[in-house]
Amino acid sequence: MLQSNLEEILAQVRDALEMQNVSEAVTLIEQFYPPDQAELISELTDESQQRLLPRMKPDDAADMLAEMDEKEAAELVAALSTSDAIRIVDEMEPDAAVDVLGSMEPEQAQAVLDGMEDAEEIRPLLLHPEDTAGGLMTSEFLALRRRMTRDDALSALQDWQPDEDISTLFVVDGHGALCGEVSLRQLINAPSGVSLADIMDPEVIFVPLGIDQEECARLMSRYNLLTMPVVDGAGLLVGVITIDDVVDVLEEEATEDIQRLGATEPLDRPYLDTSVLGVARRRIGWLLLLFITETLTGSVLRHFELELQAVVALSFFIPLLIGTGGNAGSQTTSTVIRAIALGELDSKGFLRPLWHELRVGLLLGTIMAVMAYPRAIMWGTSSGVALTVALAIFAIVVWANSLGSILPLLAQKFRVDPTVVSGPAMSTLVDATGLFIYLTIAGIVLGLH
Amino acid sequence: MLQSNLEEILAQVRDALEMQNVSEAVTLIEQFYPPDQAELISELTDESQQRLLPRMKPDDAADMLAEMDEKEAAELVAALSTSDAIRIVDEMEPDAAVDVLGSMEPEQAQAVLDGMEDAEEIRPLLLHPEDTAGGLMTSEFLALRRRMTRDDALSALQDWQPDEDISTLFVVDGHGALCGEVSLRQLINAPSGVSLADIMDPEVIFVPLGIDQEECARLMSRYNLLTMPVVDGAGLLVGVITIDDVVDVLEEEATEDIQRLGATEPLDRPYLDTSVLGVARRRIGWLLLLFITETLTGSVLRHFELELQAVVALSFFIPLLIGTGGNAGSQTTSTVIRAIALGELDSKGFLRPLWHELRVGLLLGTIMAVMAYPRAIMWGTSSGVALTVALAIFAIVVWANSLGSILPLLAQKFRVDPTVVSGPAMSTLVDATGLFIYLTIAGIVLGLH
Repeated sequence: MLQSNLEEILAQVRDALEMQNVSEAVTLIEQFYPPDQAELISELTDESQQRLLPRMKPDDAADMLAEMDEKEAAELVAALSTSDAIRIVDEMEPDAAVDVLGSMEPEQAQAVLDGMEDAEEIRPLLLHPEDTAGGLMTSEFLALRRRMTRDDALSALQDWQPDEDISTLFVVDGHGALCGEVSLRQLINAPSGVSLADIMDPEVIFVPLGIDQEECARLMSRYNLLTMPVVDGAGLLVGVITIDDVVDVLEEEATEDIQRLGATEPLDRPYLDTSVLGVARRRIGWLLLLFITETLTGSVLRHFELELQAVVALSFFIPLLIGTGGNAGSQTTSTVIRAIALGELDSKGFLRPLWHELRVGLLLGTIMAVMAYPRAIMWGTSSGVALTVALAIFAIVVWANSLGSILPLLAQKFRVDPTVVSGPAMSTLVDATGLFIYLTIAGIVLGLH
Repeated sequence: MLQSNLEEILAQVRDALEMQNVSEAVTLIEQFYPPDQAELISELTDESQQRLLPRMKPDDAADMLAEMDEKEAAELVAALSTSDAIRIVDEMEPDAAVDVLGSMEPEQAQAVLDGMEDAEEIRPLLLHPEDTAGGLMTSEFLALRRRMTRDDALSALQDWQPDEDISTLFVVDGHGALCGEVSLRQLINAPSGVSLADIMDPEVIFVPLGIDQEECARLMSRYNLLTMPVVDGAGLLVGVITIDDVVDVLEEEATEDIQRLGATEPLDRPYLDTSVLGVARRRIGWLLLLFITETLTGSVLRHFELELQAVVALSFFIPLLIGTGGNAGSQTTSTVIRAIALGELDSKGFLRPLWHELRVGLLLGTIMAVMAYPRAIMWGTSSGVALTVALAIFAIVVWANSLGSILPLLAQKFRVDPTVVSGPAMSTLVDATGLFIYLTIAGIVLGLH
């Protein structure tokens, strides 16, 4: 059953739990696919979750845990009795089990691990940082020997019972080093006595253990791979990354980029499950930093106090000008940042984007200036102030576009996430410099000193 | 070979072309994987591309075209002779061929289609809107009959030569209606005489033809599917969507969201391949609209002209206050928009996010007020102005957080893309209303009339 009527079922589950009818609640939940089960159970109280989980079939519970937010799943497992926890985590796929155990307190994770049958598959995975190929891969894979015949390979496949559907198998030499790949379809279509060495494709796209998960996602997306092997320093096949995990990485990265563009540290769990304090903590740093930077605008204005007192009308255009500068800057950075994320600007240097944006800025700045002059006149301002506003809006748009193209690229060069210096940070910078440009032009055009 | 040394190879390709040695250039390009070939050839002049393509092996040229930007590929194919175009497009997978033909002038596409052997597979696909399941699916799939035995199925598989690796096959009844799925591994492991009806899984997640591509991506990502069948109104299996196309959709949607948050209409081809005019055209509308909205801020300031003249120091805090309001608003909308995109807020209504953000806003507003008061005093302003600034920053942050949580949800309710009303649009709205709040508080605290 698909998620369509989750709200309704949720009410029924709550009713069943209230009537102490746990098995009825379990039956209601188990009719769904694991991701829907995870959504349902996340809506229940911690206490209800702890009552339900041990009553589910262990492999259903395991599949559902794998679909829950890692931190939530870890808290839930930690609250179970150790024997229940062992029974359920043992049924999880190694990469999912590692995610949950890695989010638990080390002693608790150790206690669960000590009781597990699959502990030996999982221990090595725990050593790899979560955001690398090693943290993303599963150790549950079938490595075929290159000397095997097609029939040997098919019977090895029959003995192996993986949880995930596969389309490609990897071939290793006598030492376990990766040396080729063969698709399941090729294997079926090959004559029965042929050796794998003769049908495999020796050119395999693979990654080393330590490579960043974002790079793994980029490679699998670029080369349309469903699975990608991971090798250690000696070239030995140690794991396999599957596309469904990469889809999660891509979504996670897009979430982080969008939240950073909004000047908030990324949340590490779903929005409404993050406490008010948790949300505020991830925002306050940026808000204060930008507040301090924005005080620069006050200094600029005090510097031009005489000009502002002489022509009060100048102050009416302040929000308009810095707003337009901020908008032009955001337009540029959002485009450049995305081009960086998609790898479109690799090795293209700074000059091409800068030259591109400079011309876009000159064009947009001219149009805005032509619109701004009559608009200022319509407000009843003098032609001098109107000319100032038109010249300033032109200069500010060109400046914001240029800065917006360089700043994300500079950040990347210094290995800072480009999204961090963009969005509001960029607007704040453009606010102060834009005011300086505006009031300097005002001084010249209006002859103020 | 992977993309590592593309720049170097590009120089060699250019040299070879300059020496009129086209076959050397083709050899250099064909050593790469199709996505790298596409990147290489995109860097060449149109004229070079048109010389190279007919000299490549047709299936290599086809694979490469499938990896290029659709519009670029369409322009390149349109510039070839009709016979070359037919030869190459005939080798493309149906879904990729449709993307290219759909981007060409209808008469040219018709001429190519008329000469193609695979025309019958492609014509029906051309009827579906590009951003629906019908536009995303391929018509090249193998439908197994439910009465087939395991051995029948395997030999059908041997006769079929798909270009993509597959892990799952779909089963239909005598009328062609979808009735189950069977994994390749299940098929291999089954006894030879068993009928598919006995081993297939009858519960298949599928979509109808007209469903939005974003919904397809969300389903495949949520349920970890590698392939998903598409059915017509009568339940007949008409196509299959593969995960690699969904990965492209996810990247495309994230790009659109990020660019829209920066208040620019999404580019429909890679950034540096979009002309200066093309980039400017996608930005000017928003820039002008926001400019007009920002003139509201001028009206608010003129409304409070007397207050501003009485206490000039009030104007120094204008950029600081509206900047902070804009930042708080962006933080909220970027979080809420992403939660909407990930389906976290479906059916949760307006009240939960609003209540969440209201509390976050009260907390953040209090902290900002406590910081702003001494900062204003340090600037040498009177305690009255400092109190005004502190009270205003509190009120503006609470207001921006509340508005930031409601606006995207309202947009979604009225079927407007939530990203459109957020980012700069949100900041601009907060600018004008924030000034009104600030100067109203100033009037009350400072007793100005």
